[in-house]
Amino acid sequence: MAVYTDVSESQLGAFLQEYSIGQLLSYKGIAEGSENSNFLLHTTTGSYILTLYEKRVDKSDLPFFLGLMEHLAKKGISCPLPVHRRDGNVTGPLADRTAAIITFLEGMWMRKPTAIHCREVGKSLAALHLAGADFPMSRPNALDITGWRKLWDGSRDRADEVEPGLAAEVDADFAEFERGWPTDLPSGIIHADLFPDNVFFLGNELSGLIDFYFACDDIYAYDLATCLNAWCFEKDNSFNLTKGTAMLDAYQSVRPLSEAEKQAMPILARGSALRFMLTRLYDWLTIPDGALVQKRDPMEFIRRVRFHRQIKSASEYGLK
Amino acid sequence: MAVYTDVSESQLGAFLQEYSIGQLLSYKGIAEGSENSNFLLHTTTGSYILTLYEKRVDKSDLPFFLGLMEHLAKKGISCPLPVHRRDGNVTGPLADRTAAIITFLEGMWMRKPTAIHCREVGKSLAALHLAGADFPMSRPNALDITGWRKLWDGSRDRADEVEPGLAAEVDADFAEFERGWPTDLPSGIIHADLFPDNVFFLGNELSGLIDFYFACDDIYAYDLATCLNAWCFEKDNSFNLTKGTAMLDAYQSVRPLSEAEKQAMPILARGSALRFMLTRLYDWLTIPDGALVQKRDPMEFIRRVRFHRQIKSASEYGLK
Repeated sequence: MAVYTDVSESQLGAFLQEYSIGQLLSYKGIAEGSENSNFLLHTTTGSYILTLYEKRVDKSDLPFFLGLMEHLAKKGISCPLPVHRRDGNVTGPLADRTAAIITFLEGMWMRKPTAIHCREVGKSLAALHLAGADFPMSRPNALDITGWRKLWDGSRDRADEVEPGLAAEVDADFAEFERGWPTDLPSGIIHADLFPDNVFFLGNELSGLIDFYFACDDIYAYDLATCLNAWCFEKDNSFNLTKGTAMLDAYQSVRPLSEAEKQAMPILARGSALRFMLTRLYDWLTIPDGALVQKRDPMEFIRRVRFHRQIKSASEYGLK
Repeated sequence: MAVYTDVSESQLGAFLQEYSIGQLLSYKGIAEGSENSNFLLHTTTGSYILTLYEKRVDKSDLPFFLGLMEHLAKKGISCPLPVHRRDGNVTGPLADRTAAIITFLEGMWMRKPTAIHCREVGKSLAALHLAGADFPMSRPNALDITGWRKLWDGSRDRADEVEPGLAAEVDADFAEFERGWPTDLPSGIIHADLFPDNVFFLGNELSGLIDFYFACDDIYAYDLATCLNAWCFEKDNSFNLTKGTAMLDAYQSVRPLSEAEKQAMPILARGSALRFMLTRLYDWLTIPDGALVQKRDPMEFIRRVRFHRQIKSASEYGLK
């Protein structure tokens, strides 16, 4: 939640010479996005988001992320469209960073989503999976089990500071995942981080999906499992079956799940919960207090892992 | 540089029921303003700023600040216009804070202002002084010499940590100010914080003055002296006579200074530099590292104090 890099009006003016988006009227650093510096631009042709990619983003991934947004937008998915420069590129240098301009999507993210919002997300996620199927580029998931293991190696020794017994508990999970993680389920482009702050609504209608900077190739049903974790639990960490049912039904109305995908849902949901627990735990233990990066409590996701561990059948999520 | 208080879409939706500014399309927390939480709103009728007043602002001052903006806007000063609610008020409760909506001004603040910008600021400051003359409310300057003394009492003991000898140096300044500070100069409504980040430009034209949350009744020429400190020094702390001359000439083209005001300029500029040094010093010494509030180096303004101390005549600023 920060602007890491400021931009002067003369730097921005020079940068905008390369674009055909009209005269600059204003730009404001916005307090959203935890990885990059983002500015909301007003020009004589409309509103745009200017992103300066900070060091956490690998620049060699930008053609994938921006190309994917363009591919999806052209297939009718409501997501930001990268603006091409006069030289044809979608990125350029600004204030010692690589920067891009994307279209601005109106809409609000839901701090307290309802089952109606969960239904819309389920539908849009399935549409995204279908629309991405013929995207020609690919990117391995840096946060697959091998990636989790690296995070765990960097935090295991201090995990019991967060809760006594956590190290042993997660070790046991890893043993199971490394043995039983599904390898033959339908895969393709997934969003991989479709939390409520990445989905905009106008009233009850979904107006946009944003932040494709974790997108990659992985199991479709894993992406859906992440949405269950991100949208269908209440503040007290209880699972809301109405929301789960709404999301899963809506997803299947666009892209029906195979039997194998259904059966894998509990382990996928548990793995997804562990993945978010691990990034939070790692940040929790390694980022100094008071840094600009917002730290989130890893325990919220350990409780999800425990919930999924005792699920016997995917029907307990509302899956039909 | 932060959003201290988040607002949910349902809280904001309820709050906007009291306004007639159309349907909400989006709102983004913006990383500007060091005292309050600010959001940029898009609605079907345009762009607005939503401000949630945090604890550093005394709520009993809000009618003065917002009333002043309305008074000035109606007199043709380009500043935000507070939007009235259906009940006639300009503030209301939101997320356990008092909140207001003001119109959004397009424009950019100049990270590297030129003499042209200084001229525009001089003209606008004089126009502001004239336009505020018949504003019926008043507010004493909380950061007058008595206020400086309080800040100094809270930081004097540790001042030599910043630079050895600073405590004695500032003590001597206080002795002089408490003896020789002018009391009979023309006074009225001043902005009191017209730094570059509070002035917007579109190209070389001034498009707006913002952030009236230090406005108060005090000496007009003191406000002009603050602008000299804020706009006419270079990064190496040298005074730029071309900028000073441009600003002072432009101010006088709208509101000529009396002989007494001219003679007082060196002590006013020195006092103003001390005032900003003291707030920075106090924050520097009392705000924990890594807090969301941005801390600025107090030494920049001590150097300005020293510069003004050796000025013999206001003509050295370019004052005619």
